[in-house]
Amino acid sequence: MKRGNVSNNVIRRLPRYLRKLDDLASKGEERISSDKLGRQMGLTPSQIRQDFSCFGEFGQQGYGYNVDFLRQEIGQILGTYRGYSAILVGAGNLGTALIQNFDFIIEGYSFLGAFDVDPAVIGTDVDGFPIYDVKDLDAFVREKKVDIAILTVPRGVAQELTDALVEAGVRAIWNFTNTELEVPEGGPLVESIHFSDSLLVLTYHLAQADDEKKDES
Amino acid sequence: MKRGNVSNNVIRRLPRYLRKLDDLASKGEERISSDKLGRQMGLTPSQIRQDFSCFGEFGQQGYGYNVDFLRQEIGQILGTYRGYSAILVGAGNLGTALIQNFDFIIEGYSFLGAFDVDPAVIGTDVDGFPIYDVKDLDAFVREKKVDIAILTVPRGVAQELTDALVEAGVRAIWNFTNTELEVPEGGPLVESIHFSDSLLVLTYHLAQADDEKKDES
Repeated sequence: MKRGNVSNNVIRRLPRYLRKLDDLASKGEERISSDKLGRQMGLTPSQIRQDFSCFGEFGQQGYGYNVDFLRQEIGQILGTYRGYSAILVGAGNLGTALIQNFDFIIEGYSFLGAFDVDPAVIGTDVDGFPIYDVKDLDAFVREKKVDIAILTVPRGVAQELTDALVEAGVRAIWNFTNTELEVPEGGPLVESIHFSDSLLVLTYHLAQADDEKKDES
Repeated sequence: MKRGNVSNNVIRRLPRYLRKLDDLASKGEERISSDKLGRQMGLTPSQIRQDFSCFGEFGQQGYGYNVDFLRQEIGQILGTYRGYSAILVGAGNLGTALIQNFDFIIEGYSFLGAFDVDPAVIGTDVDGFPIYDVKDLDAFVREKKVDIAILTVPRGVAQELTDALVEAGVRAIWNFTNTELEVPEGGPLVESIHFSDSLLVLTYHLAQADDEKKDES
């Protein structure tokens, strides 16, 4: 596997390929052509070939792709089998839901537990994972060399906890707080889930449809 | 306001502009140049001018943009002030967290309540919004002409509930189930939050950094 100069757009398509291939594998499909894969994903076959060419040769002209092989390669590129360590900061409804409903967090990573400020939950567990006192966050991150912090705290304390995580040396922050986090240059990677962006895209399309209907009448 | 032939990439940038402008407004900024806006958002000034030109003229050459005016215009384009009606399907941890923590759902829309199967929560409320029996979903959606259903049910029942929502005539589904939903052609718009995609992008960058370190040593 090589890693060339890969654009952000390609990187962001890789998880989509992985989901699609998981889906094909679960349906028992063994091979797929770039034509068919493209049709199912709304991409052109040449775009697919170009995306994969960033990482080497995955298919043979005229034979299509081997689904299982391609899944493994893309998983490898995305680092899914490396067991990066992860913790959750903020064990409220959202944090709890992530742990309980989204197996991929547990399966793909070495999930070490959650941190919270609430004395009522500290010392209890979520699905068998311990909830620690946020006071111990710094020492824990340093000692365990935590790779990824999943940030699910209220917006008002998001920056404060980000600063603490930066200080402790976490490598990446997965941000669910719906606010922009400031990290110093060379600090952790931040990937934010902006729920509202996605809802606004829906609303855009509804508004557009309504405006078109109005224009017609 | 006009709506030309707007690409998906432009549409997906609009919520980011709106967030940035909200942020500038809250800091008391009244005007901003496309240069400065570009630097802060990692876009080129010409890309910004091009994006906005899809919808008309928002700035005056040399004077930059009026922050408040631009906010209102982009909000208008995104349909944020239209009071689209929304319901939540699945009042578990994730659904509850969305209602409790993300004011934009409540503020920007006409939020009508939640639906669940659990007798223990049916008849109670989340932050003052009623939780109804999912048996009444069909009649409710038809009667209230619900625009948006926020789908936060377990993956195993996601398609079944999607089918029910399609049948009842909902216009849009905001999908949090981490699975691809099938809807008929001409059916509701679907916008999916794929949590795992975003986590995998983080992991990609961690893996890349590790590989580079290995290559150097």
